[in-house]
Amino acid sequence: MSTDKVVGIIGGMGPEATVDFMSRILLATPAVKDQDHVRMIVENNPRIPSRQAAMKGEGKDPGIAIAAIATRLEVAGADFLVMPCNLAHVWRSDIESAISVPFISIIDQSVQLALCQSSNDNAVGLMTTPGCFSAGLYQQALAEAGRPVILQTPNELSTTMSLVERIKSGDKSREVAMGLRQLADELIKRGAKILIAACTEFPLVLNESMFDVTFITSTDALAKKTVLLALGGDRF
Amino acid sequence: MSTDKVVGIIGGMGPEATVDFMSRILLATPAVKDQDHVRMIVENNPRIPSRQAAMKGEGKDPGIAIAAIATRLEVAGADFLVMPCNLAHVWRSDIESAISVPFISIIDQSVQLALCQSSNDNAVGLMTTPGCFSAGLYQQALAEAGRPVILQTPNELSTTMSLVERIKSGDKSREVAMGLRQLADELIKRGAKILIAACTEFPLVLNESMFDVTFITSTDALAKKTVLLALGGDRF
Repeated sequence: MSTDKVVGIIGGMGPEATVDFMSRILLATPAVKDQDHVRMIVENNPRIPSRQAAMKGEGKDPGIAIAAIATRLEVAGADFLVMPCNLAHVWRSDIESAISVPFISIIDQSVQLALCQSSNDNAVGLMTTPGCFSAGLYQQALAEAGRPVILQTPNELSTTMSLVERIKSGDKSREVAMGLRQLADELIKRGAKILIAACTEFPLVLNESMFDVTFITSTDALAKKTVLLALGGDRF
Repeated sequence: MSTDKVVGIIGGMGPEATVDFMSRILLATPAVKDQDHVRMIVENNPRIPSRQAAMKGEGKDPGIAIAAIATRLEVAGADFLVMPCNLAHVWRSDIESAISVPFISIIDQSVQLALCQSSNDNAVGLMTTPGCFSAGLYQQALAEAGRPVILQTPNELSTTMSLVERIKSGDKSREVAMGLRQLADELIKRGAKILIAACTEFPLVLNESMFDVTFITSTDALAKKTVLLALGGDRF
């Protein structure tokens, strides 16, 4: 179809989360043969400086590397860009200054999906990493929508980070999954009626069947929107 | 590390096989954090004309589309290129004419791995698709190495193709896996001591634990070589 668009994926944060995101695009696509699928150009670049470190004022600025990838993807033919990493959206303005095609935010898509899938008074439990928490991207988007939010404590965020580091090192054991699930359960105990898994490492070990409440993964939210945009069904 | 190389992946044939190949690169990499991983640039382009049709003299020439992707990947910064699709290697010369960086063949890597992992008189059972079979790429490489080969019959190739089409449509059921396994068992009955799974769709449903003989997947053979080349351990 001539209306189909090519998605450019700013990847590598982490590399397995990017591969997981690509898988979820394939799963979300109604396809019976290769040619029905979405065209993707992916730079899976794990050498981008640490985003968590940058949020603490340490290390190199990842915005420069991220914007350079965005530029290369546009040059390579991408019609719109996405980035399956929540924290990296702190550098969204660096990306948008570097390109002339649309950039579709994972934060916007996840919040939109969460709002659609729950009633107005349902508190949203926000599962995320310390860097993404302190950036406040989700808190701001949910506050603008007037939606109550249940946040993690500093201790919970710190436990989350150590579990995310284990996933990034290749440890996807039951212990890691159960650790994250327990953190999610704390949010539910404190009143969360819907959870946003706002780190693309989480769905590598968690899935919605583990929860009684609605469980939105940012990876899936962005994957579904990507398919709609790429296959011409949705406007930017 | 400054010696690290960027791999360019000519993908989309099929799209899920490309994602599987990327996963196997990650699995084959000794990494404890994002930054330890291989840099990849991937064009996952499922709109390349059918290779099976082209082998029957039907449809458009896929070589033009494949060479164009190779060019874009080189321009985007790839230091070497790979293509996780066996049949598409028929158009290898189109790729090599279009680029100035090395192209690493999945056929060469799979044959090399099979030869290393078995003794000289061990017959290799070749599991592949009708197009790849009639192109004779594996048969030629194995004949040059003086290695006996057990080939599939026309009926077996035709059954293989229908199972591959089911995988491409998203059907990764036990029935499909068992169908392919039965075809592999026929090769073993006829004397194969080692199997080469020479289609990147096969490892989406088959794995080595299903077989008593050595089971080489072309996807893994290429993934392992890619990691060695990208992380500077191997020369081209």
